[in-house]
Amino acid sequence: MLLDFKRNDDGFNKDERKAEIKRLRESLVSRQQAVREAKLPVIVLLEGWDSAGKGYLINELISEMDPRFFNVATFNHTCEHDERYPFLKKFFDVLPENGKFLFLDTGWMEDCVGKYLHREIPKGEYERRVESCNIFERQLRDNGYLVVKLFLHISRKEQLKRISTLRDNKNTEWRVTDDDLWQQQEYERFEKTYDSFMESTDKVWPWVILDAESGSKSQLDALRAINKVIDNGLENGRYVGKPTDKEFPLLGGPSQKDADLTATISPEDYKKELKRLQTKLAKLHNKIYRKRIPVVLCYEGWDAAGKGGNIRRIAYPLDPRGFDVIPVASPTPGELARHYLWRFWTKLPRSGHITIFDRTWYGRVMVERIEGFCSEDDWQRAYGEINEFEKELTDWGTVVLKFWIHIDPDTQLERFQARQNTPEKQWKITEEDWRNREKWPQYEQAVEEMLQKTSTEYAPWYIIESVDKKYARIRTLQIVTDALERAVEENVVRGMKSTWTSSKEKTKRSKKK
Amino acid sequence: MLLDFKRNDDGFNKDERKAEIKRLRESLVSRQQAVREAKLPVIVLLEGWDSAGKGYLINELISEMDPRFFNVATFNHTCEHDERYPFLKKFFDVLPENGKFLFLDTGWMEDCVGKYLHREIPKGEYERRVESCNIFERQLRDNGYLVVKLFLHISRKEQLKRISTLRDNKNTEWRVTDDDLWQQQEYERFEKTYDSFMESTDKVWPWVILDAESGSKSQLDALRAINKVIDNGLENGRYVGKPTDKEFPLLGGPSQKDADLTATISPEDYKKELKRLQTKLAKLHNKIYRKRIPVVLCYEGWDAAGKGGNIRRIAYPLDPRGFDVIPVASPTPGELARHYLWRFWTKLPRSGHITIFDRTWYGRVMVERIEGFCSEDDWQRAYGEINEFEKELTDWGTVVLKFWIHIDPDTQLERFQARQNTPEKQWKITEEDWRNREKWPQYEQAVEEMLQKTSTEYAPWYIIESVDKKYARIRTLQIVTDALERAVEENVVRGMKSTWTSSKEKTKRSKKK
Repeated sequence: MLLDFKRNDDGFNKDERKAEIKRLRESLVSRQQAVREAKLPVIVLLEGWDSAGKGYLINELISEMDPRFFNVATFNHTCEHDERYPFLKKFFDVLPENGKFLFLDTGWMEDCVGKYLHREIPKGEYERRVESCNIFERQLRDNGYLVVKLFLHISRKEQLKRISTLRDNKNTEWRVTDDDLWQQQEYERFEKTYDSFMESTDKVWPWVILDAESGSKSQLDALRAINKVIDNGLENGRYVGKPTDKEFPLLGGPSQKDADLTATISPEDYKKELKRLQTKLAKLHNKIYRKRIPVVLCYEGWDAAGKGGNIRRIAYPLDPRGFDVIPVASPTPGELARHYLWRFWTKLPRSGHITIFDRTWYGRVMVERIEGFCSEDDWQRAYGEINEFEKELTDWGTVVLKFWIHIDPDTQLERFQARQNTPEKQWKITEEDWRNREKWPQYEQAVEEMLQKTSTEYAPWYIIESVDKKYARIRTLQIVTDALERAVEENVVRGMKSTWTSSKEKTKRSKKK
Repeated sequence: MLLDFKRNDDGFNKDERKAEIKRLRESLVSRQQAVREAKLPVIVLLEGWDSAGKGYLINELISEMDPRFFNVATFNHTCEHDERYPFLKKFFDVLPENGKFLFLDTGWMEDCVGKYLHREIPKGEYERRVESCNIFERQLRDNGYLVVKLFLHISRKEQLKRISTLRDNKNTEWRVTDDDLWQQQEYERFEKTYDSFMESTDKVWPWVILDAESGSKSQLDALRAINKVIDNGLENGRYVGKPTDKEFPLLGGPSQKDADLTATISPEDYKKELKRLQTKLAKLHNKIYRKRIPVVLCYEGWDAAGKGGNIRRIAYPLDPRGFDVIPVASPTPGELARHYLWRFWTKLPRSGHITIFDRTWYGRVMVERIEGFCSEDDWQRAYGEINEFEKELTDWGTVVLKFWIHIDPDTQLERFQARQNTPEKQWKITEEDWRNREKWPQYEQAVEEMLQKTSTEYAPWYIIESVDKKYARIRTLQIVTDALERAVEENVVRGMKSTWTSSKEKTKRSKKK
């Protein structure tokens, strides 16, 4: 790609180009309104060489646009905080709403290539991330996003010239960083890596290489590329991806049929086990924190199955500074206007922390499927997208455990009636609960399919029999403590940041130069 | 306070106390539901000595509570990111919604006292912040929040004992930080400063000092204090504060009457001035960034006055990585359920950045007042609260400029009709605009009152005559560049973090010990 790049004459003289830019810029403004009305979200990714003029180009692109409907996000300097999450999280964080634009001043490409060449991530992890970028871009497309990917290209000689100009002026010399100088020195390695990155990520949304040695040529080509993607989106309407036939390491179960709902525990054993396991969990939380292992616990289950009480027994021994419980209700308008996983990506635990989701992203394949809140393609596709999401988490070293809190319809009825008859519990039971109850067979089938299609080696489902709530609590505690114990022992082999070169060492190295 | 503290016998024996704790904890659970129904937000602030057991106490307090309706926020280690905003922002960020609890593991007290004793802020700034805490607590009360403030007290001897126990165990020794050791060494200075902080902030929400040498006594007293504040809140209903008669350095204007709406600029002068001022602004943005001066530009004005185009001319020369435009529409449910300034506090610029608000917190004293979206006490009180808010920003070194984009009713009518008759502009005009137009006299009066009551020496209002939009743009650019120029020259005398001891030096110092 880069290596084949030729600076072509675009056939315009200077004035003609200027006029054409003006025309295209104005048409971008009217397209902005069309995009707003069609509720299409647009992402414009700008990657490229240091000193290639990304900031300047963004400025030109947005100059006539209505500032209420776009955002600019910059990732030149990711802070330590960002580094405590899976690398894609920061890009999910800034995803635009339907009808809005996002301009990214460097994004997932620089994040991968920069870290790899700075030796912050090893080769294997780099290659894994390239694949994750492809998955990310496909998910964006399948969920209706329009993506334009621009690479601002300048030669080594031109880069040197620009760096020198900045350095020779005492008002601008501070802008030249060690990283800029290092890239200039390592130009060829960067070129090769940029090149192979673009080759590997050219399928879903193709790259557009801009001749950034000329400000006007790159403006012209950028505007053309953006308008083209938008026109295509407006013409064909919002894209809804089909399910893929990608394979995952499925466990093929568990099944609700195999659940033994008579399972029970004696009050004495319960008391003893609760204390033992909670003490153990408290100690493990400490180790998790020190080893910086992130943990995600997912709770799904029938209404009145006992999720809340179960979660409380897990949370009790945890240091409150190191965990969060996220209750998941219907999405807000801002959540509905974005990728359906956005509201979960943005609430992930940072490394060393535990997040307990009280209901989860599996709403997509249960309530949203059954109530028709999304199309069949959407929920059919979600099994794979969710498996990919959880793969990304576990590749980052996250322990992901998923619990289906299980009861039978009779037990539910008893508990509903008990709630209705106890004044201080009445708030817990709503008309909706009764309506959902009528759809038990549909839910049962959806649950079964979910358990089959999303129980993976890396993020397994557990059915927790909860007719005896005490039994359920002990069983969950047992599974959690077992998994954390394993993680504490094993974490060296996982893709944890802590096993790579730390950013502190990086600073040291770059100072040495 | 602390110096007078005596460890009293509470008259319970061990078992009785245990039973009483159990009873109170259960009653806290039912109070949690009552609070939820009454839509009261509750903040429980835990301050106190290192090793006093704040985390442990929080755990005990929340153990039976429904985790969907509370959050725990911890401020033991604020990161560099937090330090780039006014110190209160991080507490606004975590404000609970109506009906929910927030537990703070240290908060505004430790933030002030710790930074002062670590010499990160000078005495004058410390004293200013103590006063800001009082304002913050009053604003919380006046806006319906319930606040419980607990201080966990242990003696110097007890602290030493606890530190030693942690250090002697190789599983826990990592928990002892240099800061802990330093506090032990400087116990008396801390005691004096904690004491005076509590004396100064005991009026709006009184402090409760807990005997943290006994886990059970502090639990009992904490539960009692929390239940008491809640009962009081439930009994009296949501508190709505009255306006205060606090004085501000008001400029007493400008007035709409003095606006010269015939003001105009020739197309040639416009072109020339636009270029000159935008070039100047670009350079100033650079300096602002390097000097880490935060800037807030507020736009209010009549519908169709030309706010959008004006904002675009300011934004055009700015580096897109260093500014944000925040369009302000009706509040979302999550925003409505919090302090009305929450949605603005959370969107402030970090130091060195510019935030342009397209409509602002002044909605409170205009649309919310006129449409009756808040009570008269609420909007009458807002003038003072807003002056306090802007004072906090400017004391932090923020440049705050407020523009009222002004036209007359005839000009508005012309522009409305033009919008209606131009297909690509029709989306800009709604039924609501026509309805608002009918209320011109009411708005005129509200605007006049706003200009009188909130134009302060530190955050002045400017009326921008915008019948000639070009004139308006040049005038705004002129005001902005003048103000930034002054700020760049003056910023040493402001309360900027950059003039204080940096946190880097702090690290050095604490390592020396």
